[in-house]
Amino acid sequence: MNKPPSEMNGAESVVRSLHAAGVDVCFANPGTSEMQFVDALDRTKLMHCVLGLFEGVVSAAADGYARMAGKPAVTLLHLAPGFANAAANLHNARKARVGLINLVGDHSLRHQQYDAPLSADVEAACAPFSDWVRMGRDAGSFAADAMEALRVAKGRPGRVASLIAPADIGWDEGGRMAAELPAEGAAPLDEDALDHAVRALESGERTVILAGNSVLEDVEALALLHGIAEKAGADILTPVSNRRMERGRGRFALNKIPYPIDLALDTLAPYRRAILVETVPPVAFFAYPGKPSLLLPEDCDTVTLAGLDGDGPAALAALADRIGAKPAKAQDVAPPARPQAGAITLANIAAALASALPEDAIVIDEAVSSGAATFPAGDGAAPNSWLALTGGSIGIGIPLSAGAAIACPDRPVITLQADGSAMYTIQGLWTQAREGSNVTTIILANRAYEILKGELHNVGAQPGPDALSMLNLDRPHLNFVDMARGMGVPGRRVEDVADLMRAIEDAAKEPGPYLIEAML
Amino acid sequence: MNKPPSEMNGAESVVRSLHAAGVDVCFANPGTSEMQFVDALDRTKLMHCVLGLFEGVVSAAADGYARMAGKPAVTLLHLAPGFANAAANLHNARKARVGLINLVGDHSLRHQQYDAPLSADVEAACAPFSDWVRMGRDAGSFAADAMEALRVAKGRPGRVASLIAPADIGWDEGGRMAAELPAEGAAPLDEDALDHAVRALESGERTVILAGNSVLEDVEALALLHGIAEKAGADILTPVSNRRMERGRGRFALNKIPYPIDLALDTLAPYRRAILVETVPPVAFFAYPGKPSLLLPEDCDTVTLAGLDGDGPAALAALADRIGAKPAKAQDVAPPARPQAGAITLANIAAALASALPEDAIVIDEAVSSGAATFPAGDGAAPNSWLALTGGSIGIGIPLSAGAAIACPDRPVITLQADGSAMYTIQGLWTQAREGSNVTTIILANRAYEILKGELHNVGAQPGPDALSMLNLDRPHLNFVDMARGMGVPGRRVEDVADLMRAIEDAAKEPGPYLIEAML
Repeated sequence: MNKPPSEMNGAESVVRSLHAAGVDVCFANPGTSEMQFVDALDRTKLMHCVLGLFEGVVSAAADGYARMAGKPAVTLLHLAPGFANAAANLHNARKARVGLINLVGDHSLRHQQYDAPLSADVEAACAPFSDWVRMGRDAGSFAADAMEALRVAKGRPGRVASLIAPADIGWDEGGRMAAELPAEGAAPLDEDALDHAVRALESGERTVILAGNSVLEDVEALALLHGIAEKAGADILTPVSNRRMERGRGRFALNKIPYPIDLALDTLAPYRRAILVETVPPVAFFAYPGKPSLLLPEDCDTVTLAGLDGDGPAALAALADRIGAKPAKAQDVAPPARPQAGAITLANIAAALASALPEDAIVIDEAVSSGAATFPAGDGAAPNSWLALTGGSIGIGIPLSAGAAIACPDRPVITLQADGSAMYTIQGLWTQAREGSNVTTIILANRAYEILKGELHNVGAQPGPDALSMLNLDRPHLNFVDMARGMGVPGRRVEDVADLMRAIEDAAKEPGPYLIEAML
Repeated sequence: MNKPPSEMNGAESVVRSLHAAGVDVCFANPGTSEMQFVDALDRTKLMHCVLGLFEGVVSAAADGYARMAGKPAVTLLHLAPGFANAAANLHNARKARVGLINLVGDHSLRHQQYDAPLSADVEAACAPFSDWVRMGRDAGSFAADAMEALRVAKGRPGRVASLIAPADIGWDEGGRMAAELPAEGAAPLDEDALDHAVRALESGERTVILAGNSVLEDVEALALLHGIAEKAGADILTPVSNRRMERGRGRFALNKIPYPIDLALDTLAPYRRAILVETVPPVAFFAYPGKPSLLLPEDCDTVTLAGLDGDGPAALAALADRIGAKPAKAQDVAPPARPQAGAITLANIAAALASALPEDAIVIDEAVSSGAATFPAGDGAAPNSWLALTGGSIGIGIPLSAGAAIACPDRPVITLQADGSAMYTIQGLWTQAREGSNVTTIILANRAYEILKGELHNVGAQPGPDALSMLNLDRPHLNFVDMARGMGVPGRRVEDVADLMRAIEDAAKEPGPYLIEAML
């Protein structure tokens, strides 16, 4: 059955060609216009099909899968509104430079001229949230279009490629297999920038190396980065949020640029020189009255050693070679002291998490306003992969974890999930349950859009009752244990830090998903 | 406090000007870039601010509010991803020709040049789901822009107007009040079309009058429509889904064009003449292999007496005048027989609903695959307003009902909600709970995307296990009573039709929301 037949329709040619090129997971929320893909996936049995009950679950799961599998998955989305539902988490994937392919169903080409209820401009809807958009033209060229989408998605950096699939080119016969195309490699090292970086490190001035993306995923590159910084007396910082960081005891602790604007400015104020490796000059998350947008001091001499399209580890190797630096050795760090019983607070939660996180965990970080408190846990814990919300569009954590678990079924996944953000894609719990994923979701329940209270202050306002009613999640209180049970995920509420640690340890040992509502 | 101060910022000028023009409800899911609006709403206390925990809740609630209040609400959305989250239900509002205004926050003008994490092209994101888009330029002209948005939203038909609000023009001083602008009226009656319609009615050929939008909202227009049809021996049909229909005993029963393609073609096959009143020539919801897109017979002589921009009731009055028709009298219909105890089935559910629906209910219809079975309930029940999913983008019911309840706090709202669709915007239950809305959500639990099974068949496929796994909502089963409890909405599961009726009657009498999970 899995040898391509001599005759097949367009949908089958796409499924078979993508699979032959290594794409074997499809995250789907299909509708009528995608039925020929459902049929092709069903008949060929080549892909693991994962259903999301909302498209924002689908796109974030594809992102989480790609961050951990190191290769793209394909999504199946339903016309312009289905794409729009997926868009917020596609935005996050784009900002993370994660590659994935969207197959966006559309009306058949001859039906597009009529204003049917689900008609809208699919290409225009895809454009602001995609790096590449193409409308399929006919069954015969459809698989070749999919291979072009895959080429774009697998480039360096990864990109979001959206291929629009009019229904008829999926169901028409005449599909033809297409071969994988070579993906675009990283931009070559800029020798002038290398000279510039060497001069910065040898300048004797305060220098910061800002490193992002693939550097943070690569334990050897991190060792070299620290060797360079030690040799030159430079500091290391990372962007405020990163798609994946390899962390934990026996590895290197990393400091992030803080999120709050004043702290960020203070942190970067001392530097006269900055070397960027797979990142861009840091900018404020938001603008505020009377505050700058660019975070580095105006007179800081900045060089991009490797841009977002560069090869950071290779650039660091070249830099180390030029200044004679060797890989650093991470210091052995003792496991953190286990907190005693007591209320769960922002002061004890990092130690609790560091103590309780299982070996080789994948940590999904959508902690938002609790994030400054929880982030240090990743350094004190056993080795882990730490995946954060990258584009600022909340509602990624639960489905990102579902996708990461599908990429790495043998690793425990722990999600640090702000309560307000959890509600955007709460449906992802059901996908965790259906897939039997070993995901432990820790709801950090402060019962507010806590971060916005600070932001209201930052625009000079004092919150009154009407403002607070738009920032607080009380009246009524949410009960995440009930919601999770309704989607097939068992759970419990904890108010004591010792209970929290036990609950994490128990949950990570058991197969299948679990939810812990941690009352802050 | 509520007299405009001599000095105010841009955000306050917008809030005050919209309020002075009659906009007094704001559905919001704000973020950092909207904090100056939160502040202005808080300080002025001019609007009822309703928080949604997801933007798709916000947009559908604004739609439901407008359908029942007959005037626009304003939404508050957070940059391009926040708009995208709202877009699917804005699509539905557009297809319903419902007017509303989106205030979409964006980075401050000077911050837009940097690639901050939440940066994206907000104008491009808004365009495919808006009838009108404008980027605000400065504080002084901001309220005038809002008045232009209101003019567009209140036109005939209603439109979706999106005003993008860079943060700085909200917080800058120099805001100036702006006065309401006259909205565009309906297109004038086309006298040639009127002649054409008269000829159709006098032709002696089988004639159908297809009536939509404001005709269906207007009890007097419906009486005239039926008088015309009786006088001329014509039939009446409505589009497959309608934003609002005034229905119930003592009114006129209306037949819809069926959703399934073959049934729709069969229904329209007999007609040689068609008169369109506030609707367009009917098209298939989707295209299917070998089936036509246009549903009326090719040789059917069709005239648009009033387009979507026309005044259907006025056109019908002119037509009645020409042929000498009078308003018909609706027949007195006895209340339906109350079903006996037994399983809830598609065969008994209409009678059960008709028997149990309270007087003057607002019925929200997102019944999807159960819709053909539940729709007749609206004719047999006490008088009611029946609001349907209009744009085919599922996930409208729960939040549409929340908005309708805010427009009509004294009327009971009953939501007929398919289970799969419910999961798209399940967060809307929390808004119902917070607002104490008298909404009874009836989950029609068939535990599948049932409608897609027929659609798979329509593209010629036989579903195997992998296809069914993408169409069934089992593994695990959803428990909506648990989910609702987690969001502060009490509920129960019913399996017996007598229990269902009692539960509806009890819930509608009690204030506040309730959820009934009806197992089909």
